[in-house]
Amino acid sequence: MKVFIVGLGLIGASYAEGLKQAGHQVYAFNRTESIVDLAIKEGILEKDNHLNKISEADLIILGLYPKHNIEFLKNHLHLLKKGQIITDVSGTKVWMMDEIEKIIPEGITYTSHHPMAGKEVSGYHAKDSNIFKNANFVIVKGKKSQENDEIVLRNIAKDLGFGKITVTTPTKHDELIAFTSQLTHVIAVSLVHSDHLEETKRATGDSYRDLTRIAKINENMWTELFLENKQALLKKINDFEKELDDLKKLIKNDDKESIQTYLKEAKEKRKQFDED
Amino acid sequence: MKVFIVGLGLIGASYAEGLKQAGHQVYAFNRTESIVDLAIKEGILEKDNHLNKISEADLIILGLYPKHNIEFLKNHLHLLKKGQIITDVSGTKVWMMDEIEKIIPEGITYTSHHPMAGKEVSGYHAKDSNIFKNANFVIVKGKKSQENDEIVLRNIAKDLGFGKITVTTPTKHDELIAFTSQLTHVIAVSLVHSDHLEETKRATGDSYRDLTRIAKINENMWTELFLENKQALLKKINDFEKELDDLKKLIKNDDKESIQTYLKEAKEKRKQFDED
Repeated sequence: MKVFIVGLGLIGASYAEGLKQAGHQVYAFNRTESIVDLAIKEGILEKDNHLNKISEADLIILGLYPKHNIEFLKNHLHLLKKGQIITDVSGTKVWMMDEIEKIIPEGITYTSHHPMAGKEVSGYHAKDSNIFKNANFVIVKGKKSQENDEIVLRNIAKDLGFGKITVTTPTKHDELIAFTSQLTHVIAVSLVHSDHLEETKRATGDSYRDLTRIAKINENMWTELFLENKQALLKKINDFEKELDDLKKLIKNDDKESIQTYLKEAKEKRKQFDED
Repeated sequence: MKVFIVGLGLIGASYAEGLKQAGHQVYAFNRTESIVDLAIKEGILEKDNHLNKISEADLIILGLYPKHNIEFLKNHLHLLKKGQIITDVSGTKVWMMDEIEKIIPEGITYTSHHPMAGKEVSGYHAKDSNIFKNANFVIVKGKKSQENDEIVLRNIAKDLGFGKITVTTPTKHDELIAFTSQLTHVIAVSLVHSDHLEETKRATGDSYRDLTRIAKINENMWTELFLENKQALLKKINDFEKELDDLKKLIKNDDKESIQTYLKEAKEKRKQFDED
């Protein structure tokens, strides 16, 4: 299959690496052109890579920030051809899919997806297609999705080594991601900010390290993600604050039995999460 | 050195394993006697292990829950001998050290410590002295501490493979632990409880998994730890809630620039944490 990737950041470049290894013909656009040259040199893009190859692609993968994905599409509509499938790897869907659905021409289908994998480092040089091994892959169908899109996306998911594949709606996706991804990042950065002690490092075990690992955040990308999924995220923060406050009250009231029950329930729920 | 360990749970048994390997003579008491027999069979205790060996020990390590450490000491004061050093591995200090200092006889010294290592599983069968490798070791001096205690504790820390050793006060210890250990567990269990979606598992990446790993909690031990360190913990929960609420407000107000700054500061602070 001919694949055109827009943006050779961490995910775009890792896709290029993995898809090339799987035997696809991979082309890409990147704002900084020297990165494209490097990617060709490193053998993860075809040698005859240039922007108008987008017209020949079976699948176009948008790998920029949501706003830049929309902007890129607007500027390159004239290069698209009937029968092509567009997808993207963004972390929020409702808002961006709506914008993209408004502008794509007749005869071109669009099905979004979300690779549930990442790193605390970003950019081309952080690329590593191994991050996808057994990771979750969420396909998000919208108003311009066609049956065939799902088959194509399932195939590239397999080629990249992903594990469980789930098909869902933009609204449900954003709700899930607000919880599993955005809320966890909000918690991690808040926790780091709430450290008012000089000796923290010398007294810490694995817990604090694990809970704050993702605070090493790409601040531009995550600010966009938070704001584009604002309503769902605010709801999840509120849900979490409510639970935290309930537990705080139990501790304040020395309610030993209720704390034990609360902790036991959390343990059981978390253990179910580990099961396959 | 002759070491007597009270309680062969995860930490007590892992200490026994590590200290025996380092060449010490190790004895232990455990409420369930069959565990002691097993430990002798597995070669991590001396063959002639029995309770009155406590009178011959140079160092007595209390490895039970705080309340049971105090109770054990009260019931066995008649077996203690002048010149012995008592220590313990508990997760909270102010309250327990105060109780222990009240009862230990003249001529016996007591210096507490805290091995910053653990597992989400507990009990003898989870023992693994490798968990101490390069972990932090916090020595906590109290009213019955003597200079020599610190030397003895520094030596066993080295024998067990610990990394950084810090000496502090009970109050500072409890404040640090409230933040790095208890608050993180409070967050993890609250986060698991705030999951109201069926599909969470299929849409999650590493973030949620990492932040909730420690929710697989020993509910009895942690309830005790939370309550024994209640004031320090409540303060840390409040500090964290304040930060979380500040960030929530920035998101609510679409204050893009302030969110970026907040995230950037968290990243820098967390990166410093990684440096040695």
